[in-house]
Amino acid sequence: MTSTASQQTITRADGRTPEQLREVRITRGWLDAAEGSVLVEFGNTRVLCAASFTAGVPRWRKGSGKGWVTAEYAMLPRATNTRGDRESVRGKIGGRTHEISRLIGRSLRAVVNVAALGENTIVLDCDVLQADGGTRTAAITGAYVALADAIAWGQREGHVKKGAVLTDSVAAVSVGIIDGTPMLDLPYSEDVRAETDMNVVTTGSGEFIEVQGTAEGAPFRRAELDSLLDLAVAGTADLARIQREALATEPAGYRA
Amino acid sequence: MTSTASQQTITRADGRTPEQLREVRITRGWLDAAEGSVLVEFGNTRVLCAASFTAGVPRWRKGSGKGWVTAEYAMLPRATNTRGDRESVRGKIGGRTHEISRLIGRSLRAVVNVAALGENTIVLDCDVLQADGGTRTAAITGAYVALADAIAWGQREGHVKKGAVLTDSVAAVSVGIIDGTPMLDLPYSEDVRAETDMNVVTTGSGEFIEVQGTAEGAPFRRAELDSLLDLAVAGTADLARIQREALATEPAGYRA
Amino acid sequence: MTSTASQQTITRADGRTPEQLREVRITRGWLDAAEGSVLVEFGNTRVLCAASFTAGVPRWRKGSGKGWVTAEYAMLPRATNTRGDRESVRGKIGGRTHEISRLIGRSLRAVVNVAALGENTIVLDCDVLQADGGTRTAAITGAYVALADAIAWGQREGHVKKGAVLTDSVAAVSVGIIDGTPMLDLPYSEDVRAETDMNVVTTGSGEFIEVQGTAEGAPFRRAELDSLLDLAVAGTADLARIQREALATEPAGYRA
Amino acid sequence: MTSTASQQTITRADGRTPEQLREVRITRGWLDAAEGSVLVEFGNTRVLCAASFTAGVPRWRKGSGKGWVTAEYAMLPRATNTRGDRESVRGKIGGRTHEISRLIGRSLRAVVNVAALGENTIVLDCDVLQADGGTRTAAITGAYVALADAIAWGQREGHVKKGAVLTDSVAAVSVGIIDGTPMLDLPYSEDVRAETDMNVVTTGSGEFIEVQGTAEGAPFRRAELDSLLDLAVAGTADLARIQREALATEPAGYRA
Amino acid sequence: MTSTASQQTITRADGRTPEQLREVRITRGWLDAAEGSVLVEFGNTRVLCAASFTAGVPRWRKGSGKGWVTAEYAMLPRATNTRGDRESVRGKIGGRTHEISRLIGRSLRAVVNVAALGENTIVLDCDVLQADGGTRTAAITGAYVALADAIAWGQREGHVKKGAVLTDSVAAVSVGIIDGTPMLDLPYSEDVRAETDMNVVTTGSGEFIEVQGTAEGAPFRRAELDSLLDLAVAGTADLARIQREALATEPAGYRA
Amino acid sequence: MTSTASQQTITRADGRTPEQLREVRITRGWLDAAEGSVLVEFGNTRVLCAASFTAGVPRWRKGSGKGWVTAEYAMLPRATNTRGDRESVRGKIGGRTHEISRLIGRSLRAVVNVAALGENTIVLDCDVLQADGGTRTAAITGAYVALADAIAWGQREGHVKKGAVLTDSVAAVSVGIIDGTPMLDLPYSEDVRAETDMNVVTTGSGEFIEVQGTAEGAPFRRAELDSLLDLAVAGTADLARIQREALATEPAGYRA
Repeated sequence: MTSTASQQTITRADGRTPEQLREVRITRGWLDAAEGSVLVEFGNTRVLCAASFTAGVPRWRKGSGKGWVTAEYAMLPRATNTRGDRESVRGKIGGRTHEISRLIGRSLRAVVNVAALGENTIVLDCDVLQADGGTRTAAITGAYVALADAIAWGQREGHVKKGAVLTDSVAAVSVGIIDGTPMLDLPYSEDVRAETDMNVVTTGSGEFIEVQGTAEGAPFRRAELDSLLDLAVAGTADLARIQREALATEPAGYRA
Repeated sequence: MTSTASQQTITRADGRTPEQLREVRITRGWLDAAEGSVLVEFGNTRVLCAASFTAGVPRWRKGSGKGWVTAEYAMLPRATNTRGDRESVRGKIGGRTHEISRLIGRSLRAVVNVAALGENTIVLDCDVLQADGGTRTAAITGAYVALADAIAWGQREGHVKKGAVLTDSVAAVSVGIIDGTPMLDLPYSEDVRAETDMNVVTTGSGEFIEVQGTAEGAPFRRAELDSLLDLAVAGTADLARIQREALATEPAGYRA
Repeated sequence: MTSTASQQTITRADGRTPEQLREVRITRGWLDAAEGSVLVEFGNTRVLCAASFTAGVPRWRKGSGKGWVTAEYAMLPRATNTRGDRESVRGKIGGRTHEISRLIGRSLRAVVNVAALGENTIVLDCDVLQADGGTRTAAITGAYVALADAIAWGQREGHVKKGAVLTDSVAAVSVGIIDGTPMLDLPYSEDVRAETDMNVVTTGSGEFIEVQGTAEGAPFRRAELDSLLDLAVAGTADLARIQREALATEPAGYRA
Repeated sequence: MTSTASQQTITRADGRTPEQLREVRITRGWLDAAEGSVLVEFGNTRVLCAASFTAGVPRWRKGSGKGWVTAEYAMLPRATNTRGDRESVRGKIGGRTHEISRLIGRSLRAVVNVAALGENTIVLDCDVLQADGGTRTAAITGAYVALADAIAWGQREGHVKKGAVLTDSVAAVSVGIIDGTPMLDLPYSEDVRAETDMNVVTTGSGEFIEVQGTAEGAPFRRAELDSLLDLAVAGTADLARIQREALATEPAGYRA
Repeated sequence: MTSTASQQTITRADGRTPEQLREVRITRGWLDAAEGSVLVEFGNTRVLCAASFTAGVPRWRKGSGKGWVTAEYAMLPRATNTRGDRESVRGKIGGRTHEISRLIGRSLRAVVNVAALGENTIVLDCDVLQADGGTRTAAITGAYVALADAIAWGQREGHVKKGAVLTDSVAAVSVGIIDGTPMLDLPYSEDVRAETDMNVVTTGSGEFIEVQGTAEGAPFRRAELDSLLDLAVAGTADLARIQREALATEPAGYRA
Repeated sequence: MTSTASQQTITRADGRTPEQLREVRITRGWLDAAEGSVLVEFGNTRVLCAASFTAGVPRWRKGSGKGWVTAEYAMLPRATNTRGDRESVRGKIGGRTHEISRLIGRSLRAVVNVAALGENTIVLDCDVLQADGGTRTAAITGAYVALADAIAWGQREGHVKKGAVLTDSVAAVSVGIIDGTPMLDLPYSEDVRAETDMNVVTTGSGEFIEVQGTAEGAPFRRAELDSLLDLAVAGTADLARIQREALATEPAGYRA
């Protein structure tokens, strides 16, 4: 976590500097049955990422020799301050849910060599147990680790050939401008105040997979965009390191 | 956990005697925002119970002076050994989900003095994070504790008058006959083998709220029914004690 | 219909003793096309049960050599005092409907030898034309007779091998405690007043298939549960006799 | 039932002449609770028509001083030779169902003086218990009688002012050309063979409310259209007489 | 466009005589990709008709050697004066939409020799861009031309054998009685005032495919029905000529 | 349209230079009834944008004094090369549709002074009649003009106070990297080949409202991101000029 002299003087409500991540925890093996599973926490945001490995691919992909990776994102009704209706009860999935599910799936596929995966499917379920901002970026960051575990499982079980299936790692972080200052990894209380809100997904080697910036209040200038990108790239580099460390140790499992 | 001499000779796959509960844990305060929240575990079964308190009641109950308590049960897609489709994606709620949600709601309402609650609504969301049998009984047992916490919150905040809102506690357990032996609190591996399967909901004082017995294989005789009821009543007495102990201490919260 | 001396002094609004069934009628062959069809009446409750026989089984059961029996329950919008919305118009099936459909299916399957049925499917449609309490128990009782007729049709037509497909008969009845007295076969006016409500499904030989008891008001004691079970077992024995008599005669058909 | 000499020589499978209706029965009071109810039979076609009277009108009509009459048509799954899926299970209403519901509603409204009805709503539920052709025409014919009974109920109860609410009666019949011969009131076996199929709704005084003719095979000529209209007008005159007779007697009720 | 002396004295709001069509335009080739496409205009009513040709037929028709033609009708939300909700957003298709889609499909199939079409499917999408009365009749009239183009495409590409697939042309028009005068091709302002409203579909040779007449206010007499049919037949003859002329020239395409 | 010397040597399939827009047309007043309506064309992509003005706001915004602007995007089934299923028929809206509708709404709201709009709602319906890449960017660009017309209508009719409601204009364009070259405004044939795909929404004064970049093949580097942003900003400046010109002239209307 690098920081410039000028920004260090600003302290956030939770005591962080503008360019600092919240405490990030990645607990592998949180579920007993899933081929890969991670409880990822970005501060108070908690997302359970479960990777389900199944031999075979959807019909439209059969015979291609290529695998498929997809994701579904959802939020428990009381993950937020105020209870939300269940999408299963309303009978349809909201636009936001669809959008985030698609983003997670695209982000993961960007680092998967589908030919090396072979005709196997991995579904990543990212369920937000508690939401305090950055749920989609936490989900991507945790889902990558669960995906890596599920691929390793597939190789151990002989469903996937040995060799690299993942071409790189992938992590994501949110950035935003608050009272004129670009800040990294926004909790909910900052997110609602941000003038500009951006989610950035990068590879472990620092290249971009997704850049999604939105002016919440006033439009933003190119210089602001540039400083947000700088901040995000530094943040995802930190996350990539945390992912590597998590994967380097034995899975701790539930009640770690 | 009482046990008769004759049954002690049978040992189950997990080392329990037929009349023994699995390890039961009740972690209060697992969520930061919910007015009551409990992570309840019956062995490997883990259910997150969140109680949401809102002032006011549904339209059909307005002006009655009475409150309302309801519940929604759901299962994460990878709570089970094989991933299940999300009900939100399928666009409708399955019969089993409906049935269990209704059972939880009825069971809780049986111990709520709705007049004492006043025109307030408490929704209990019971989301199964991991399923290893007995998810509905764990949900009822945990939801009772979350409900008690939400009522206490309502009284602290002045939404509910001081005084008893709960007329008793409520807990539930499953029982079944396996290879001719009645057994308490079945994990999934036993549940699928049970000839008869029964879920029993009782009050803390040992009276019945619900009795649901189903012949899975052969029909069952009156004597078998009686022995299952005996076993269940002893089991829910144990659970009532565990609930009392959980409520008697300070909430441990997440990472307890 | 046996009755104890002590109970005889209580007379119900419709003149029955506590342990007496309402007038039960079973009219076979009410539909021209269905392989089995019964209009079953428990007093003013009228349920049309149609059994549809089709060769073949659902995909998940193909090649098993075993048949499948399932049921769908529904209520006409004006079966009740106040018109209810159609589930087809609301676009989803309610929890109660699901629950009862599942109960009927389970109850019938408990007496079907699916291997003897062979790879054939029988669907029981139980549509409530008029509801005056006990619709689910009337449905089970009538559906059994329609099922028996559909199996006989399958054997006559050569789809099913000769020999016993049904291992026993099945009938159901409701019981409840009203003003402290256990009573059999509750019409709507009694059902809404019952402190405890129980539906019991038994075989013709008096063993239990389902026991579902619910405390509507106060929790119930073991002694009450026992007396309700006694009453129900006597009631279903009566129903089993009425079923046997209906099956022993030529189908009367519509306008019997 | 008039008939011309030339046509009398043709006899239909069920023994009728081309211009003869099937046996038509109208049983009033088939349901205990509905404000009007009719079991109408055109041969083997049986439709249960229930009229539900409620004070008040839909929001868009409030304050207009005018009432509202609408209809919902549906078919039980086993009304037909082959079981059909329930629309509630499929989660949506088919085009045919919608179309017929709208036709019934329009036909009835054509004879209702909505100002005389006052701000009251009558819903006609027409549920086909058994289908053998002509279900929509039987439904209209029966629903008119149930509607008349529900209006009379509203007047007896003081919800509707005394005086004529119905400006005329309404009845409907199907006609079709089979092997070149125009025929009245087609059962299913004739309906599938008809080259042209027409449903005609008229008032008791013989004027047209709806004319719906469809070329099933070859297009039809003006002369054919004319002869079908002649046949239909004679048929609905017969039906109007049967309706008058049904309304002139005391309701027979169920088990008439 | 013929007109009788007596009617010429009545002039409509848009200057037409009662028996005159609005200006009708048929623009072929409005879309680049569709196998047939027509923008059809009846005055201000504009419907885009796209014919999609695909080899193969639905499963229930496979192996029959016969093709299939079907249609889907819809309206853009702001085709009308007041914005309507999207059916995709409401999650279900309205009765009117279903009814018109079915009418268009039936009308087109009446002139298709499905055996000559071979096992190919043509779907006609008729989307109303602007609605000013007569959208269904414009849709049928335009869809016929798009269908003819799609069949010609199928023959050029070798999917369909050379030779007549269409047995005749098909066109449709609305007629109605306004202030006692039968009028042809009603715009919205006349449609809402019509006492009787009729849609007539005929072949190019003047025979009937569909006749759908509805009394909007008072029931109509046989003489009125006859005069409406006369008017409609003359109108569809005009439309058949316009269709022939459109098909006789090179497609003009978009920005004609 | 600026261009660098090095890029001018590359010519695209349609003859454009990499930094050139397709031919853009904006036809105002394409619909008669809508308060604002535009047919916008980016080459062969044609989107009909209709702005519907209604007094009042959704319930959650009542009494705020602020207006509301929202958008719904959809595609006609045969807008594309291969016919797609209607979302109304499938009964649910796809993720892509939701995502684009939300993007359009957000983009427009970024330039609306909701307090100046007052408690009025404007819904923008963007229906793709023909899709050849860039449908969402064409929709935003056209919808802005329709929105401006609807606001002017609201002011002429006295629903909105005189004065600036729009704080700036808004336009959008797609950019992508194809064979290593950044290119502006991709048609479908280029879009499917792009390694990186970005949609950029800017104000007329050149500031950013949305930036959405996605690596379709390999991740992209910061330098590539920078050059895509340069290209997009130049493109939206061109579009802003075209919008100004369109709004400066009298609306041409349909058949311009």
